[in-house]
Amino acid sequence: MQQNHKDQSAKNKASAAFLNKKKKVLEVDQLVAGVAAGDRLSLAKAITLIESTARNKQQVAYELIEKLPNPTKNSIRIGISGPPGVGKSTFIESFGSFLTKKGLKIAVLAIDPSSQKTKGSILGDKTRMDKLSSDPLAFIRPSPAGKKLGGVAAKTQETIHLIEAAGFDLTIIETVGVGQSELEVYSMVDCFLLLLQPGGGDELQGIKKGVVEMADIIAVNKSDGETKDLAQQTRLSYKNALHLFPANPNGWTTKVLKVSALEEQGISDVWESIQEFTTLCQENGHFDQRRMSQSKEWFQKHLNQMVLEKIEDDQALKTAYKEQLAAIEARETSPIQAAKEVFKKYSETPSK
Amino acid sequence: MQQNHKDQSAKNKASAAFLNKKKKVLEVDQLVAGVAAGDRLSLAKAITLIESTARNKQQVAYELIEKLPNPTKNSIRIGISGPPGVGKSTFIESFGSFLTKKGLKIAVLAIDPSSQKTKGSILGDKTRMDKLSSDPLAFIRPSPAGKKLGGVAAKTQETIHLIEAAGFDLTIIETVGVGQSELEVYSMVDCFLLLLQPGGGDELQGIKKGVVEMADIIAVNKSDGETKDLAQQTRLSYKNALHLFPANPNGWTTKVLKVSALEEQGISDVWESIQEFTTLCQENGHFDQRRMSQSKEWFQKHLNQMVLEKIEDDQALKTAYKEQLAAIEARETSPIQAAKEVFKKYSETPSK
Repeated sequence: MQQNHKDQSAKNKASAAFLNKKKKVLEVDQLVAGVAAGDRLSLAKAITLIESTARNKQQVAYELIEKLPNPTKNSIRIGISGPPGVGKSTFIESFGSFLTKKGLKIAVLAIDPSSQKTKGSILGDKTRMDKLSSDPLAFIRPSPAGKKLGGVAAKTQETIHLIEAAGFDLTIIETVGVGQSELEVYSMVDCFLLLLQPGGGDELQGIKKGVVEMADIIAVNKSDGETKDLAQQTRLSYKNALHLFPANPNGWTTKVLKVSALEEQGISDVWESIQEFTTLCQENGHFDQRRMSQSKEWFQKHLNQMVLEKIEDDQALKTAYKEQLAAIEARETSPIQAAKEVFKKYSETPSK
Repeated sequence: MQQNHKDQSAKNKASAAFLNKKKKVLEVDQLVAGVAAGDRLSLAKAITLIESTARNKQQVAYELIEKLPNPTKNSIRIGISGPPGVGKSTFIESFGSFLTKKGLKIAVLAIDPSSQKTKGSILGDKTRMDKLSSDPLAFIRPSPAGKKLGGVAAKTQETIHLIEAAGFDLTIIETVGVGQSELEVYSMVDCFLLLLQPGGGDELQGIKKGVVEMADIIAVNKSDGETKDLAQQTRLSYKNALHLFPANPNGWTTKVLKVSALEEQGISDVWESIQEFTTLCQENGHFDQRRMSQSKEWFQKHLNQMVLEKIEDDQALKTAYKEQLAAIEARETSPIQAAKEVFKKYSETPSK
């Protein structure tokens, strides 16, 4: 009787595990179908899976990506950056609405490096784009800063992949933050748009060095009211200054525009410049070339990311990593020696 | 008899291995003593070991680094970059001689990304610095581009470590090449000096975007003969333009100077600016801060490098890595999927 009971219990367990597995497969298949059909709820769920730090959810997410058919069209990927207070959200609200009026399906990814600490800022950003949030052709998604040991928004490429599989025409990647993120976003997009304040100079302290030079299009915002003249002056100063800086290998001359996101002025100029830029690059092969070198860079980054994830997942490895970082901070070891210690432990730890 | 013979042979082998090991230990100890005493030949030998791609030589090199006493003084690390033809070698010849006349011990590392293909260019560079090459206070060393799968000059940090252990006052790191290397060198130095051509604009095509903004000091070379006036104009244009770009968080205003490496004019201004810059940063803590964040960055890079080295060392892994790169190129796989494949094989391969 006891034995029978045990057997039955084991059978039940096995059966439950089987059903559970079957349910998961069904879940993934449903998500795949939903994303491929452009269903926003499925897309949101899929991105949540991708961004999850739980190992089992991640596995489901990668299964999902493998099962997804390749995107039938590539969206144009546009990076938008600028110093705090320049009006990025207002600009994206105007720009996004302008595009959806043309019938284009757009996705906005806001990468917020501060979101791990102040989770509230995510909602803050979302509500700042009222109009776009309720637009049926727009999909807005704030992204957290990704794994602690990795860089900013470690899963952004996967998210772009999902968005494109869902049939969006344009992916806008906004960096809310200051610092490293702009350079990372630059390596993910086809066209990089930098918003600047009228006045230039000191107001730009929020941008990392090198970012102005990397912009494909610069738009001086707040070309309205009291700052209208200053915006025009700033535009001309940048236009002149940029002549001194290295030329773009793709033959493009960086456009410097003025816009008023508030009054919705100059928005169409930005869109025309983006189209002009992408057409030029598509024709001379630089569009594909940029994507290819980005792909290779991402391959390497993913590989590094997987190494970091194994460290993050193993308590002993994670502790060793942190101890070595602390030892560098305390000048008790060299970066070379520290890396050697962690790598030795890493090699001795079996992968899960 | 046969058995005895075998025993004797085994004993001989063991004895030879013991002597060999002892010899190696002696060799390392000799090198350690030589480097610590500032002996140039030992330093050159140690750098050759570090740069070796042979596993056993690398192990000796790391043993050497571990045994070396920590440098008693840190040298100032200066990065020098500029477009091809700007006169970097001539400048370093003038600048280096100026410094050794002051009794300073300087080391010049020339990182040449092209040196793996055209080994001749190393000698080419070396002979271009005639005067400095025979200066007893100067040590000139061209560095190859490092492991194929890794970045440019993968072992530069180790080399800097050796140079500082040998008691040099200044380490000058020159990037001969175009592209990625400038940004890598920027992350290794205390002060980044950019040499520019008179005229600006089109002549700068050899510099990667972002590099001008990162310079701590800009020197317009060829302020002599027919280009003297143009050099002055160029200097002023950059001085004005740089006001528009992000400010340095360390409070430094990028200096724009003019020099004539050929006529040895303005060289002392460069040296004064470097001293002014390093003094400011040492006083406000940014000097140590920059080195610390560089150390942490290097720790992460070394860890990635070690992963790459394991791939490079294992024929099957190396093949898998290259196959995945080719599959990305042929659009048969995604970077995510490719990284996953390589990582899976990587985890299954035991470390040597």
